[in-house]
Amino acid sequence: MSLPSQVRIVEVGARDGLQNEKAFVSTADKIALIERLADCGLQSIEATAFVSPKWVPQMADAVEVYSGLHRKPGVRYPVLVPNLQGYERARSVGVEEIAVFTAASEAFNRKNINAGIDESIERFRPVMDAAKSDGIAVRGYVSTVLGCPFQGEVPLSDVVRVAKALHELGCYEVSLGDTIGVGTPAKARAMVHAVAQEVPVSALAVHFHDTWGQALANILACLEEGVAVVDSSVAGTGGCPYAPGATGNVASEDVVYMLQGLGIETGVDLAKLADTGRWLAGVLGHDSNSRAGKAAVIKNDAAKA
Amino acid sequence: MSLPSQVRIVEVGARDGLQNEKAFVSTADKIALIERLADCGLQSIEATAFVSPKWVPQMADAVEVYSGLHRKPGVRYPVLVPNLQGYERARSVGVEEIAVFTAASEAFNRKNINAGIDESIERFRPVMDAAKSDGIAVRGYVSTVLGCPFQGEVPLSDVVRVAKALHELGCYEVSLGDTIGVGTPAKARAMVHAVAQEVPVSALAVHFHDTWGQALANILACLEEGVAVVDSSVAGTGGCPYAPGATGNVASEDVVYMLQGLGIETGVDLAKLADTGRWLAGVLGHDSNSRAGKAAVIKNDAAKA
Repeated sequence: MSLPSQVRIVEVGARDGLQNEKAFVSTADKIALIERLADCGLQSIEATAFVSPKWVPQMADAVEVYSGLHRKPGVRYPVLVPNLQGYERARSVGVEEIAVFTAASEAFNRKNINAGIDESIERFRPVMDAAKSDGIAVRGYVSTVLGCPFQGEVPLSDVVRVAKALHELGCYEVSLGDTIGVGTPAKARAMVHAVAQEVPVSALAVHFHDTWGQALANILACLEEGVAVVDSSVAGTGGCPYAPGATGNVASEDVVYMLQGLGIETGVDLAKLADTGRWLAGVLGHDSNSRAGKAAVIKNDAAKA
Repeated sequence: MSLPSQVRIVEVGARDGLQNEKAFVSTADKIALIERLADCGLQSIEATAFVSPKWVPQMADAVEVYSGLHRKPGVRYPVLVPNLQGYERARSVGVEEIAVFTAASEAFNRKNINAGIDESIERFRPVMDAAKSDGIAVRGYVSTVLGCPFQGEVPLSDVVRVAKALHELGCYEVSLGDTIGVGTPAKARAMVHAVAQEVPVSALAVHFHDTWGQALANILACLEEGVAVVDSSVAGTGGCPYAPGATGNVASEDVVYMLQGLGIETGVDLAKLADTGRWLAGVLGHDSNSRAGKAAVIKNDAAKA
């Protein structure tokens, strides 16, 4: 088992997580969340999304959240932007890193943005051009890499093609997302292996959802393929819009606990992270979805008692 | 990644699972559970425990459960026995396979049965002798193989010594249990690797709890070491007595889904198993702890609608 010595966690709870939570979280709580996450030692924290509030009401306060944030030196705070308009709003508040997104599934793109794969890529070319001339780093998301709620199987060749296109367009990192959490370890590994033939594995991240409980096993398989960047969400925040009631993003606490056990450096303080997860679950009014988070809280409380 | 082509699931929900559930489950529901599990295609179903009802009130109806069961030909129904008295009660109702248990942790044994490791092994020698002369198959459990709630670290040499002793005493299979669910994949793999130097890997099973969310990743690592028998519990039934509120046994649905995805034969019908998990969660009056189980139910309901 050959594993990386360090892994960078990209914490997506404040965006991908909250975006799929029903209760509106106040701007103050969003800012508190992001600042707490930075205090846990996380180095990449997705902060918000500059999307239409009609699509995603939870992200309506993107400008206020980003402007209100005390940013910690050395920490990245990428924000999601769907188009040039979003990019310009993001730039107006001093955003230094953005993320763009598309899907590897033809059907998913058509449903989501009413465009095929190729057209979806063409659509963010203006954003890429603007970011390049402004010196803004861009992260790319490819969703539905291991299955699609509309078309089912997604050809590996489409995943490779989309990931390669994003990388060639200038994304410094391409995050490969199992949006509906259907992947299993051998398939995840084969997918990463195929993409790594066209995009350096050092420019790849993996983004698993735990809908079918497979996320950590999939991450393990991908680490063995050389992946060293993992997206996750504190408290496993966010459900699955395609399977209401099911689990969402893999929990950061579970990922950090596994990585620590594997002797892989993350720079994250697990006790603080678990405490942040507990606090966030309180804000959201439901249980944490992180098993390690809950166990760590129980353990830490017992140690204090 | 070299993996076994077949895995036998040892379903422990009706014993290890229910034993840690607060609500008393009626004898009729216990029997219904076991019969449903057999109908799902499971080939080893731990049925009950012939232990003192003072210790484990949930298992007070062991005689009634086992006697009332319509046993399916070809399916194993092991029962847990702690001593010769339990063995004789089990034999009186026609039990054909038993399981004995001890821990790899000195402190755990002292707390649990007021005896050290060696004495605990000596204590079930009479049971092993009786089983041998009666032609009864014996499965052995070693708990706390990756950590102990009382002593913390458990020396690998103790795990190996106990597993070897159980095998030499006549256990056809030794199940290595991470009782408090603290293990991570590299440690799980190293543990299995060490034990396999003394006990053939074909005689080893793994038994993970999902307290820290690591169970599937650990199972994956152990499959890669050649393990082909996995203990699990439908709906992830049973909590963790050492961390109240935390998750218990790894869910059978999650294991079966992963194995299917890996192309490994289990003989289990996942849709039926998920349905059984949903039914059991209803009986227990709380949510299923199986992520794959919940996702499968959502998917199957959507397909029917």
